[in-house]
Amino acid sequence: MALLVQKFGGTSVADAASIQRVAQRIYDTVQDGNQVIVVVSAMGKTTDELVKLAGEVHADPSDREFDMLLSTGEQISISLLAMALHALGAEAVSMTGPQAGIFTDGTHTKAKIKDIQPDRVLNEIQKGRVVIVAGFQGLTAEQNIATLGRGGSDLTAVAMAAAVKADRCQIYTDVDGVYTSDPRIVSAAQKLDVIAYDEMLEFASMGANILQSRAVEFAKKYEVELEVLSSFWRKPGTLVKEEVKDMEDVVIRGIAIDKNQSKITITDVVDQPGVAAKIFQEISRADINVDVIVQSDSKQGRNDISFTANADELKKVKTVLANTMSGIEHGEVMYDEKVAKISIVGVGMRNHTGIAYRMFSALAENEINIHMISTSEIRTSVIIKEAQADKAVRVIHTAFDLDKEES
Amino acid sequence: MALLVQKFGGTSVADAASIQRVAQRIYDTVQDGNQVIVVVSAMGKTTDELVKLAGEVHADPSDREFDMLLSTGEQISISLLAMALHALGAEAVSMTGPQAGIFTDGTHTKAKIKDIQPDRVLNEIQKGRVVIVAGFQGLTAEQNIATLGRGGSDLTAVAMAAAVKADRCQIYTDVDGVYTSDPRIVSAAQKLDVIAYDEMLEFASMGANILQSRAVEFAKKYEVELEVLSSFWRKPGTLVKEEVKDMEDVVIRGIAIDKNQSKITITDVVDQPGVAAKIFQEISRADINVDVIVQSDSKQGRNDISFTANADELKKVKTVLANTMSGIEHGEVMYDEKVAKISIVGVGMRNHTGIAYRMFSALAENEINIHMISTSEIRTSVIIKEAQADKAVRVIHTAFDLDKEES
Repeated sequence: MALLVQKFGGTSVADAASIQRVAQRIYDTVQDGNQVIVVVSAMGKTTDELVKLAGEVHADPSDREFDMLLSTGEQISISLLAMALHALGAEAVSMTGPQAGIFTDGTHTKAKIKDIQPDRVLNEIQKGRVVIVAGFQGLTAEQNIATLGRGGSDLTAVAMAAAVKADRCQIYTDVDGVYTSDPRIVSAAQKLDVIAYDEMLEFASMGANILQSRAVEFAKKYEVELEVLSSFWRKPGTLVKEEVKDMEDVVIRGIAIDKNQSKITITDVVDQPGVAAKIFQEISRADINVDVIVQSDSKQGRNDISFTANADELKKVKTVLANTMSGIEHGEVMYDEKVAKISIVGVGMRNHTGIAYRMFSALAENEINIHMISTSEIRTSVIIKEAQADKAVRVIHTAFDLDKEES
Repeated sequence: MALLVQKFGGTSVADAASIQRVAQRIYDTVQDGNQVIVVVSAMGKTTDELVKLAGEVHADPSDREFDMLLSTGEQISISLLAMALHALGAEAVSMTGPQAGIFTDGTHTKAKIKDIQPDRVLNEIQKGRVVIVAGFQGLTAEQNIATLGRGGSDLTAVAMAAAVKADRCQIYTDVDGVYTSDPRIVSAAQKLDVIAYDEMLEFASMGANILQSRAVEFAKKYEVELEVLSSFWRKPGTLVKEEVKDMEDVVIRGIAIDKNQSKITITDVVDQPGVAAKIFQEISRADINVDVIVQSDSKQGRNDISFTANADELKKVKTVLANTMSGIEHGEVMYDEKVAKISIVGVGMRNHTGIAYRMFSALAENEINIHMISTSEIRTSVIIKEAQADKAVRVIHTAFDLDKEES
């Protein structure tokens, strides 16, 4: 008998029929002799509809009231899922975030979980019931309902799994696991049986929208074994877990691709101490995440500075630079609105040599030009033209022997 | 400066535009120098939609989960109304029933309010904020959300008004007050400026769907001055208050009409002690409200017993009688599926004589036959043919000089 936390997202509970399918799946898990805590998101389009309603009465609603409104979405799905389980003859009880003992800080719309007091949840589990917890929400010290922000239900599931010391936290999604690369682009991509937390973190922050980084970080911190699996197909997914020795035998785990990057270049910036710091301080103050930064060697007291940011933030970048650069001697500011970032990821990079070389060679052989490079201990990223991104990821995938064998 | 509780029903907050209209109305009340606690129901069709969703996953959902589901309706409307008030520049904060300190017993779907602890509400009022409370819901001792059942938002408003010692509880509805009779039937009906609690109770239980009886009873018990007024038109409504001496000067306050009654007659019931008691005990056990009961004089050891019940409960009545009457000697059981009950109501009936006679004369002159009669201290009701109901209420209205003067 295992204690499992199972998380189902909005597409898995989009309508009554989907809810009944999810209920059946939970019921089967219980019949197999497991104890189950379920974390569920709002039904498909509910959140969008609530956001629309809010927009009709206020252009910029208060965060506290927005949370009061949005949190109803999960309350609807938990009660319906409990009813669907009852219809199958299972004992089940729904709980809002506050009822499940989830306490957050007061940062409405993007609250952080401060504490989970799972007594009530565990009490119901002891009675043999399935406990269905509303994801994405908790109670602040001021007794207000707060939501956790984007991907918050994953975080609820992982934090609950940590609090009750669950044997595993299963995240049901519309994909059947984590792949060596995006299967829509690389048809030869293979599903991974296992991936290390740190590798998953690199994937999560690279635009592979399977798990939110915060949830993976939390899982890593509290050593919660995660499983990403399909809510539609009944087969094992990908385990996300602590790094173990033999994981390093694999050279790279997979390749992440992010086509939604912009490249900004400022030419001939005066080479004085603190100038680059000043520029990036202002960008950081505007809450813009800068990724790759390259500064050219000084020529005649001038530098070129290039960096990348998420393309959605380019407008904000332009505003900041318009204000900041007026006080700094420089040439031009140039924007490449769409570039792609291709990253190879793997804990094996620590022990294997020549990996970056293998990547660069594959690109060079295919006449793909590298604009910028950045690395971490377990990742090497290159910035290239967006138009060459799909080809690039395919040739790298082949170069690292990641392609699945023809069946 | 007065402390007011204002209650708005589902039709008043049916969509974003209606919510904005309600917000404007509250805002104006605040601008006039009042402190306002608002109680609001779910938006128009929300409850129906939620009930439909529940029906899609379970034929007979658990009461606890049903309450979990339905209570989201009010949570949506309170947050939207708070946002709409913010848009007008007002300070406002929404609270669920539990947050507002409303505690109920554990009878899910028809819970009773056990206690209100209004500290948090009053604290926000003291800060100059409008407090918007979700009607229809509260927290049980088991920390579950319970709903109060039909008309529960009226009860929330009255109970909150009692708890905070509000100067007045205003119930906004789609009518502009309480009338001497139903204006759709009696075009000469007049709006009442004032009505006593006991009179309103007779109206409420007679099918005038303006205020639920439970809310009026609560208001009477805690001496909460109620005002029924229109959410569309800005003019004074009808005050529902303690009886004062000069109220008795009016012979009758108004005429209630209920066309949704059934009459059941059991002929030649054996005249033995306890037989009638047995019949009505079984009916009461089935939760059927019996209204008028008439038992004929015994003739040769046999009685005819007639009674009325709400037509919606006739099916239940038939089932009960099928089981009960098999053990009791009797003749036939006859059903008149639709009859009408016309009631004259007024505290003045205590002091004036010949009132019933005036009613019966008016009916006789118009050849309307009376089937059954029942009376209370401040009410006289007759059961007549449904087809004659409209005519009956008009002639009685005229007979008691209630018709408004031609303008």
